[in-house]
Amino acid sequence: MSGEQELGITESKEHSTGEWYAEVVQKAELADYAPMGGFIVTRPRGYAIWERIQDHLDGWFKDTGVDNAYFPMFIPESFLEREKDIVEGFDPEVAWVTHGGYDELEERLAVRPTSESIITPFIADWVRSHRDLPMRLNQWCSVVRWEATETKPFFRTKEFLWQEGHTAHRDEDGAWDETMTRLDQYERLYEDVMAMPALKGRKPPHDKFPGAHTTTTIETLMPDGKSVQAATSHYLGTSFAEAFDITYADEDEEEQTAHTTSWGLSWRSMGALIMLHSDDQGLVLPPTLAPTQVVMVPIWQEDNKDEVVEYAADAAAELDEAGVRVNLDDRDNRNPGFKYNEWELKGVPLRIEVGPNEVDDDELTLVHRPDGENSVEDRADIAETVEDHLDTVYAKLYASAEETLEGEIREADSREEILGTIGQHGGYVKTGWCGDEDCEDPIKDALAAEIVMVPLDRDAEPIHDDCAICGEDAQETAYWAKTY
Amino acid sequence: MSGEQELGITESKEHSTGEWYAEVVQKAELADYAPMGGFIVTRPRGYAIWERIQDHLDGWFKDTGVDNAYFPMFIPESFLEREKDIVEGFDPEVAWVTHGGYDELEERLAVRPTSESIITPFIADWVRSHRDLPMRLNQWCSVVRWEATETKPFFRTKEFLWQEGHTAHRDEDGAWDETMTRLDQYERLYEDVMAMPALKGRKPPHDKFPGAHTTTTIETLMPDGKSVQAATSHYLGTSFAEAFDITYADEDEEEQTAHTTSWGLSWRSMGALIMLHSDDQGLVLPPTLAPTQVVMVPIWQEDNKDEVVEYAADAAAELDEAGVRVNLDDRDNRNPGFKYNEWELKGVPLRIEVGPNEVDDDELTLVHRPDGENSVEDRADIAETVEDHLDTVYAKLYASAEETLEGEIREADSREEILGTIGQHGGYVKTGWCGDEDCEDPIKDALAAEIVMVPLDRDAEPIHDDCAICGEDAQETAYWAKTY
Repeated sequence: MSGEQELGITESKEHSTGEWYAEVVQKAELADYAPMGGFIVTRPRGYAIWERIQDHLDGWFKDTGVDNAYFPMFIPESFLEREKDIVEGFDPEVAWVTHGGYDELEERLAVRPTSESIITPFIADWVRSHRDLPMRLNQWCSVVRWEATETKPFFRTKEFLWQEGHTAHRDEDGAWDETMTRLDQYERLYEDVMAMPALKGRKPPHDKFPGAHTTTTIETLMPDGKSVQAATSHYLGTSFAEAFDITYADEDEEEQTAHTTSWGLSWRSMGALIMLHSDDQGLVLPPTLAPTQVVMVPIWQEDNKDEVVEYAADAAAELDEAGVRVNLDDRDNRNPGFKYNEWELKGVPLRIEVGPNEVDDDELTLVHRPDGENSVEDRADIAETVEDHLDTVYAKLYASAEETLEGEIREADSREEILGTIGQHGGYVKTGWCGDEDCEDPIKDALAAEIVMVPLDRDAEPIHDDCAICGEDAQETAYWAKTY
Repeated sequence: MSGEQELGITESKEHSTGEWYAEVVQKAELADYAPMGGFIVTRPRGYAIWERIQDHLDGWFKDTGVDNAYFPMFIPESFLEREKDIVEGFDPEVAWVTHGGYDELEERLAVRPTSESIITPFIADWVRSHRDLPMRLNQWCSVVRWEATETKPFFRTKEFLWQEGHTAHRDEDGAWDETMTRLDQYERLYEDVMAMPALKGRKPPHDKFPGAHTTTTIETLMPDGKSVQAATSHYLGTSFAEAFDITYADEDEEEQTAHTTSWGLSWRSMGALIMLHSDDQGLVLPPTLAPTQVVMVPIWQEDNKDEVVEYAADAAAELDEAGVRVNLDDRDNRNPGFKYNEWELKGVPLRIEVGPNEVDDDELTLVHRPDGENSVEDRADIAETVEDHLDTVYAKLYASAEETLEGEIREADSREEILGTIGQHGGYVKTGWCGDEDCEDPIKDALAAEIVMVPLDRDAEPIHDDCAICGEDAQETAYWAKTY
């Protein structure tokens, strides 16, 4: 817990990104640290962002045939063991319930680290015929992974909120289409809602989800030059269907094995959003996700207070009526400068200033966050004007992030060049790669950078003929980066 | 898990309510049993009902100043111990996490049975001044209570979904208003959304929430004559504020102790909904909550199939356009009778039958669930007509439940009369009561009935002058019933 806090960010985004991020999260009242290491409390201003992310994705999921459901948060140990890859992948990270009330349980229960091993057997039970397919289930829930790393709110926490989709299909084509549909929806979320340009690719084979045939990924670039795995969508082939016996009768009453997928996005997406856009004044949010889109600040003297506040309240009411999320800050005990700083800290994308001049001229002064660009606009049609400005703020955030990303994808042709380029600039480096995991080791050891993705198209020509590490024939193009 | 199932309910609501309920839940595909006793899997048709309940309640909460947040699912044992009443109340029911990965934890973590003891310290930290009050937080989450009773989906499960609200206020008046606001919203949910008449009252002092000053309750009557505690709202006084040190500086900079509340509604509400309205044909749902409100069933011969299906599809499209949740069942491999039974089983409130006669006469035949009342209506303005019929179906469900409830509240004036009346009829019995917990024992022992509530108004005259058990002066009116 935090105790009394100074208003205003003291750390620098450029020079101490980690500390700056932690300060923004706490001072913008997005989250606080829980008493147990690795856990956080998500406060209303943080949770409201997550709710908007949920609303967008959940709507798209439902429009494309996904049903929500809810499975138990505990998974019997024997169920986890049915899928050996899952066990090997998650065993070191599982939190175990061993006692219920005063009694020791006969079988330990895992707090779900992911739910394939409890959901898949039910899908197997519910699927009988080809008419039951595709079956698409999703749940919004929390999961626990007992990682012994430092707590970084939203990025690294032992418990985190996410959605996990689990689907079954007749064949590889159906399951692969599903995998890509979800990957595309995640990309759309980043591009159209979070103002974050995103890269799409596959994880290298040695970094797939345990048991998956192919893991596809959305990668986003953080301001410190590290890549964030921002969502994943897995084509699981028939490995889970075989382990849990998902079979169906086809049109000819022949028994067939289904192909499955799973896909998930966690509140790490929020972490990436906060880290990418925010600045030394505090939180920056795209208008799409900001709980408060517009703050209206009246600036008065004693002799014109009623007039100014009424004018501001009237404009705020008109915005509210039009569906803009607006807050009128007419507090007596704070001066305008304090209010500006507070709402900048809290990430309100548009400030409207109203003084006696605005009242006299039938105007309003609009100020963009984060670049401070301001313009005086007519009071008439203010809702439409504000919507335009909110769109502009979104476009500016996106353009700035896109420009950064484009400058941060470089090429390299040797181990030394990879190390030098990432060491000096961060960002992504593209190389030819033979496909051998061993070629990742020297880079990982020297710089903690790794291959974060390869192109989705398996037949794409590698950018160079030779692997940048071993010099053997390159099989594909690898994107290297440091990661969160 | 269930295996292959026969379509159609075989048990009788009247004669074997428990078995009938379990059958409806499984065959209408609302839920399935998990591999661990006491846990269920909520399937899409069940979860969709819960989502609609959430949408209604969550909207009302937000309209009345409540913010959603998310607190950790684990609570350190030492935190639970700070509120001794909570510990005593929940200790026998707590599931304990003792290991993270391969390591034993230094301190056991409780899987939250309720979150007062983790939320209240944060409220204490966030509240400084009277300007920070009222503070109203809510979370939608799952909680675990390790009760060793038979699994009854939604009614009794070790893990259940709910919302829990936690608020802090300057004084008793503020906190008491909050307690009643939430109780009224719960009543509104039952009356206006779930078609369930509800009784409002206080729990007797010996049956309050641990640590509460007053526990208020919504009680609903089930068809087997038992009462369900359908939601509770607690005025906690200053007990939690004192245990966790929620103080604030008032206008004169004097330190004051806050008053707090908590309030919750769980998926038990869904259980009560299903049990109250459903029948021997299966699930019955009010149109407000039904995932599918209308099923359109075309009835064709080979020579008129295209015409009939097109007419039905056209009407379904018009309903969909108007926001009605409609499903066109044009499956080739099922006959109309099978379809009628299936959609009755699954709780669709309105069926529309379309045969060649309807096409010729430009009409549609509407059939209500559950009473089978049918009427032939003009094809023109069908969306408006359907909305009217859905309202009528709701009104019929409510009226039927209200009539039953009104006939099931009786008076009694002695121990024998309480036992005889509840034993014969079930339902509620009102008596005078001295206020002593001991007077509940003879009824509890003989019949497993208890005092489920007393009137909200503490100054109300008891209905009889004397306690029906001991004959001393009655202090209030007690409502006795068997309970779930």
